[in-house]
Amino acid sequence: MCQLLGMNCSEPTDATFSFTGFARRGGDTDEHADGFGAAFLEGRCWRVFVDSAPCCSSPLADWIKRHPIKTKNVIAHIRKATRGSVSLENTHPFARELWGRHFVFAHNGTLADFSPALNGSYLPLGQTDSELAFCWILQELKARFESSPSTEKLFEALGELTALLARLGRFNFLFSGGDFIIAHCSDRLHYVERAWPFSSARLVDADLSIDFSARATLSDRVAVIATAPLTRDERWISFEPREMALFQNGARVRSAILPEAPKD
Amino acid sequence: MCQLLGMNCSEPTDATFSFTGFARRGGDTDEHADGFGAAFLEGRCWRVFVDSAPCCSSPLADWIKRHPIKTKNVIAHIRKATRGSVSLENTHPFARELWGRHFVFAHNGTLADFSPALNGSYLPLGQTDSELAFCWILQELKARFESSPSTEKLFEALGELTALLARLGRFNFLFSGGDFIIAHCSDRLHYVERAWPFSSARLVDADLSIDFSARATLSDRVAVIATAPLTRDERWISFEPREMALFQNGARVRSAILPEAPKD
Repeated sequence: MCQLLGMNCSEPTDATFSFTGFARRGGDTDEHADGFGAAFLEGRCWRVFVDSAPCCSSPLADWIKRHPIKTKNVIAHIRKATRGSVSLENTHPFARELWGRHFVFAHNGTLADFSPALNGSYLPLGQTDSELAFCWILQELKARFESSPSTEKLFEALGELTALLARLGRFNFLFSGGDFIIAHCSDRLHYVERAWPFSSARLVDADLSIDFSARATLSDRVAVIATAPLTRDERWISFEPREMALFQNGARVRSAILPEAPKD
Repeated sequence: MCQLLGMNCSEPTDATFSFTGFARRGGDTDEHADGFGAAFLEGRCWRVFVDSAPCCSSPLADWIKRHPIKTKNVIAHIRKATRGSVSLENTHPFARELWGRHFVFAHNGTLADFSPALNGSYLPLGQTDSELAFCWILQELKARFESSPSTEKLFEALGELTALLARLGRFNFLFSGGDFIIAHCSDRLHYVERAWPFSSARLVDADLSIDFSARATLSDRVAVIATAPLTRDERWISFEPREMALFQNGARVRSAILPEAPKD
């Protein structure tokens, strides 16, 4: 399986602290050693770093830790291959353009017997069920909306599509097309919101603490989403099964429990 | 304006030597300081590094120089902004999927009065005429071929589209969707082929020499394409105006002078 990391912020923030703990799970404190990816929103575009080396020891991951990128939105992924070889084309997050916007997607889980009809709008480069699901989602969104919908409408449409896919297996994911993150939980996903007055936190996976209160201001708000809590001494909240949530400006602004799709 | 660098090889090769000279033109020995990008073919996928910092001083460019990536194909670009702000979404090479293949494109020049009808298959994320041209090219290729054509057929179709665009201005570009590079010259592009017996070469832009004969083998063949020659003491060949060439396995395998499109 894999692990997910998302960070959504009200003000440009660097993800170095969270990424440092997360990266160690990529082959050191945990077994997700089959590559990693991290996407940082910069302007209208995601800058996507991918590497098929283990995140814990990848020189590229090291570069990311040493060169903090200030951004309002990050989606990262460490992989333990289940479907598809260890190679770049199978490395999340996947990124595609729709309506002149740049979308990214990272998935934890496996979908069984998933072979949707693709009309050619989006075809996978690799062999993962994850990229296939992303291609199908974008194809269906494109069919529903001729031009870019509001984030609210996108949330609703993605919810309907997700309910259909989630019945095929474990479908924990992070999805974004701009300044928001939509997160869905099948069985394992957590989040924490940081806001004034900030406290300090200690990583679970590395001997590193940070005192957010010394760095953050009144307008700072940060939501961190992760497969498993990244810090001790903070209040991580577990998603409900089938819960899909929208994060914007560093806070969870909307949540819905998706209907269980009827079995055939 | 901008500058282009391409490297196409018969065997996996690192582009460190060429990239080192090229990078200095991004704000040091030349004025192309508005960002850079470099795409490396890895498996079925391009790994694209982009930065809006000057290539000569970008920490990311420095990382690329220190961590040689062995690949058969590289396309890189240093930017001097003419259309569109200095930002990531305006940074070449641009990358998109078509027919389940990953295409990249980098452009030197400016197209005037170019506002093609886009049907939504590919829409630009940024504001450059370059990305707009790439989107239009992919849209038209998709309309012509339902599934992936041979490289030969792709070369011919791209030639027809290029003849139409080239009348609108300067349209020097590098284009690839796999193990080949298609290069087009409006007014300024050069290439050199390296093969057995290899010789040594000295960079134009940095005090650095390399003796290829000490490293390369009989099966190694490398073609380097650049806006302006990168080395002294090698036989760089200037493209003809309106020449489009196909590079594969480290050699120029096909070339055509495109017809001058009729003026209105």
